[in-house]
Amino acid sequence: MKVLVIGGVAAGTKVAAKLKRESRETEVLILTKSEDISYAGCGLPYYVGDVIHERSQLIVNTPEKFAKLTGAEVETGIEVTGLDREGRKVTAKDLKSGETKEYTYDKLVIATGASPVVPPLPGLDMKNVFMMRTPDDAEALRKAAESGTIKRAVIAGGGFIGLEVAENLQSRGIRTTVLDMLPHIMPGFDPEMAEFVEDHLADQGIMTLLDTKLEGVEGDGTVEKVKTSRRAIKADALVLSLGIRANTAFLADTGIELAPNRTVLVDDHMRTNDENIYALGDCSMITNRMTHARAWSPMGSSANIEGRIAAQNIAGADVSYPGVLGTGVVKLPGLNAGRTGLTEQVAKEAGHDVVSVVAVVDDKAHYYPGADSFLVKMIADKTTGEFLGIQVLGKGAVDKMVDIAVVALSMKATVQQLEHLDFAYAPPFSTAIHPFAHCINILLNKMSGSLDTFTPVEFAEGKAEGYKVIDASLKPTLEGVEFMNLEEIDGEVEGHPKDEKMLLVCAKGKRAYMLQNRLRYYGYTNTKVLEGGSTFNGEDLTED
Amino acid sequence: MKVLVIGGVAAGTKVAAKLKRESRETEVLILTKSEDISYAGCGLPYYVGDVIHERSQLIVNTPEKFAKLTGAEVETGIEVTGLDREGRKVTAKDLKSGETKEYTYDKLVIATGASPVVPPLPGLDMKNVFMMRTPDDAEALRKAAESGTIKRAVIAGGGFIGLEVAENLQSRGIRTTVLDMLPHIMPGFDPEMAEFVEDHLADQGIMTLLDTKLEGVEGDGTVEKVKTSRRAIKADALVLSLGIRANTAFLADTGIELAPNRTVLVDDHMRTNDENIYALGDCSMITNRMTHARAWSPMGSSANIEGRIAAQNIAGADVSYPGVLGTGVVKLPGLNAGRTGLTEQVAKEAGHDVVSVVAVVDDKAHYYPGADSFLVKMIADKTTGEFLGIQVLGKGAVDKMVDIAVVALSMKATVQQLEHLDFAYAPPFSTAIHPFAHCINILLNKMSGSLDTFTPVEFAEGKAEGYKVIDASLKPTLEGVEFMNLEEIDGEVEGHPKDEKMLLVCAKGKRAYMLQNRLRYYGYTNTKVLEGGSTFNGEDLTED
Repeated sequence: MKVLVIGGVAAGTKVAAKLKRESRETEVLILTKSEDISYAGCGLPYYVGDVIHERSQLIVNTPEKFAKLTGAEVETGIEVTGLDREGRKVTAKDLKSGETKEYTYDKLVIATGASPVVPPLPGLDMKNVFMMRTPDDAEALRKAAESGTIKRAVIAGGGFIGLEVAENLQSRGIRTTVLDMLPHIMPGFDPEMAEFVEDHLADQGIMTLLDTKLEGVEGDGTVEKVKTSRRAIKADALVLSLGIRANTAFLADTGIELAPNRTVLVDDHMRTNDENIYALGDCSMITNRMTHARAWSPMGSSANIEGRIAAQNIAGADVSYPGVLGTGVVKLPGLNAGRTGLTEQVAKEAGHDVVSVVAVVDDKAHYYPGADSFLVKMIADKTTGEFLGIQVLGKGAVDKMVDIAVVALSMKATVQQLEHLDFAYAPPFSTAIHPFAHCINILLNKMSGSLDTFTPVEFAEGKAEGYKVIDASLKPTLEGVEFMNLEEIDGEVEGHPKDEKMLLVCAKGKRAYMLQNRLRYYGYTNTKVLEGGSTFNGEDLTED
Repeated sequence: MKVLVIGGVAAGTKVAAKLKRESRETEVLILTKSEDISYAGCGLPYYVGDVIHERSQLIVNTPEKFAKLTGAEVETGIEVTGLDREGRKVTAKDLKSGETKEYTYDKLVIATGASPVVPPLPGLDMKNVFMMRTPDDAEALRKAAESGTIKRAVIAGGGFIGLEVAENLQSRGIRTTVLDMLPHIMPGFDPEMAEFVEDHLADQGIMTLLDTKLEGVEGDGTVEKVKTSRRAIKADALVLSLGIRANTAFLADTGIELAPNRTVLVDDHMRTNDENIYALGDCSMITNRMTHARAWSPMGSSANIEGRIAAQNIAGADVSYPGVLGTGVVKLPGLNAGRTGLTEQVAKEAGHDVVSVVAVVDDKAHYYPGADSFLVKMIADKTTGEFLGIQVLGKGAVDKMVDIAVVALSMKATVQQLEHLDFAYAPPFSTAIHPFAHCINILLNKMSGSLDTFTPVEFAEGKAEGYKVIDASLKPTLEGVEFMNLEEIDGEVEGHPKDEKMLLVCAKGKRAYMLQNRLRYYGYTNTKVLEGGSTFNGEDLTED
């Protein structure tokens, strides 16, 4: 059997290597347009910031080494331009010689990846307009940053890669602005979580311009100004991080089914609508494990799983891909962010009876050096109890919180099943009540009615209008707000009618919860706790 | 209703606080022998090492503050000495006045904790014999360490607390030896994992003396020598960390059912055999979530869960505790260790058809600063596929690996269900093939037969006798061992008959797996991969 793989980065090399292990008698040939194969795309921003010092560290394998190691053959500098399904062959252009070549196959694997979106705007061909997709891209930006000529940079696009580039430029002393045409950065996060990150980045000196479209670049051959739908920004460099588009132009008119975004539709065996053709990695459209809706997961992690599955299936096994959860994690300056599962918005669209909670919990024993908070949003179905998703921000191990949720979601756990778990605890790692368990407890309290709250979104929407804000902190903390000392409440509180609407606010939410519990006992019927307290919502609670 | 709680550290304060929130009309009185309540027992070793600077950081609450905060009353300095179940009252001694007092109850909660085991050996009353159970204990050891008079210390007992004390004394420049009467330190780990830790600690200057019994102390009022069943050790201090014993002497002859180790037997509602009496925390005997056998979990994390459950049940709810997994995590110098679920030994005793694998995998992208290895042992049932347990060593986030396994075990996942999970990946946090997923893949390869190995235990037992060791590393690495370059193998290998027994060894196991795969294709029928490679088994593979 002859298997042709188009593309040689994560998905292409994985499927080839695994296939040769499964079935060495299978001929496997990788065709790749570039000269590099198997590079660490996710590491590029860190090479820009000199967190990774050597370009060679980004290269997992050379074509020669890879071929020897695996037994797959590799031809570089070959761009596939056409597909003849009936004849089971592809046409390609040899980029060195200019020749047209043909390659036949028994099975074809499309792993052509994706390319950065470059909109047709004026000035994008100028010097100091960068992308972040290949080692060459990273090299170019790094050199420019090191030359000292870039004082200010604009990143167009507030996805994970854009934000990682922003962090790495900022760490080199370059003033960085991130613009996004959407109302928020951080796709995959609910708006209030993204907004917290935006505020945090502003505190760190990285400004975000939202609802703002890139309109072009001005300059005398080199970037001097970045034009946007709002205003022009003085800048010496522009990094385009506007997303990627699947490299599937050569599939036009072949009858291979594509999604509206031009990715290749595959079934759970990674097969296209042609049983001899598979597609995987950034150019393929898979499904969401929870909703079974189509999902695009252009991630190195997905590429590896998909490569393994496709290889097993091509070699004759019968392996199904259950799909992705939309998991992601990103390191930002002084704050990490991670997520998995459904956002509140997606959960509602999927028809769930959504309950969510925003909780601020310790990430390790409060007395242990480096202890900090996790800001967690948990989402569940109120009726079925199904756990639906998590979003976590914090200085610490947000990835741990996310990975715990990944297993819970994959096993279709209910919130109730996630109570009482025997998580790992020692002061350097966690808290006696594990932060994940702690959030589950808070969510359960909310679901049972023993905690009654406004979420940060409800608060921002004005649902707390007419509520008297009460400072429930350990000591008076919120300016211009009445302080109520939990420790002294042992009956009716003077000056407060039993039906008074009171919004109880403390630093994190815990003390406000205790105060609500106490006030309820003494007959107060209209209290609400502000989820996330002043840590999440800010200290100025009188404004909007 | 009047609820009497005996004990005021983790379990006692938790049950009281939660109960008052569930039902403030319930009278709750905590009786505690000591003057402190609610201290952070798990933080004590770090106070000794000055990782935690202030004693006050260890105190979660004073009795007065706690009472005000929760509404529970607290009486300190009260030692309960007797129980009258029929009369629903306890007798107690007021340690300040010497008076005998009586306290009645409707419901009684026994949360008396446990005390360090102090064997009746000569010299243990001398100066510089320490324990590690209370803030006073930690204070005493810290002062002695700071005085500069302790150059050498012996820790008796190689459990987590003993090892944490060893690390914290060593960081102060004190030479530390840990002795244990068992064949290995680190209870709850399989022997080969514990042995790896022992070797690592020796490299760090902490010696372990195993199969060695403490026999006493010699000195002129102050410790000078620690006598053991092997030899006497010159030392200026001895820390007793020989385990703890439940504080249940006052229950003798009351008919309350105790386990052989004197802990109180409780049902899944945390109730003893007397329906009005609950027991929780270190003094109680619960069950293992997987085997349903009795399990003792004297941990702050369990205490909190148990307190919550008992409070809910006393307040009228019907909440069951599914039990513990035996989860634990410990920070050691340059190596963390964590575990959950069944060890190989316990899994075998429980009747499982055990398959295990020892794998060495990257903990984050290999090119990201601080990347290191996880040394992982995974245990499963070959027949049912049930995932049974994990043990992890490494510089990095072993707690993450353990917590992932905690959810998997609690949801009764099979190894097959744990394949293809969409874990969080970005280079600062993880690898594109997540370390947990990577280990699952290796285990599945072993279960399917596509990987054929000797485990480190099989190797140590001599199962590889008669096998020719082959160095499968990237380049020749193992001294005196024939090197076989995977990249050059493209057919029969000269000098090696097809049925030759060959043990393939590389640094971590991955390249040896690839070599095995290749050799099998060319007809070699008797190869074995050494799990964990030279990283786990050491480079000298000719010895023993």
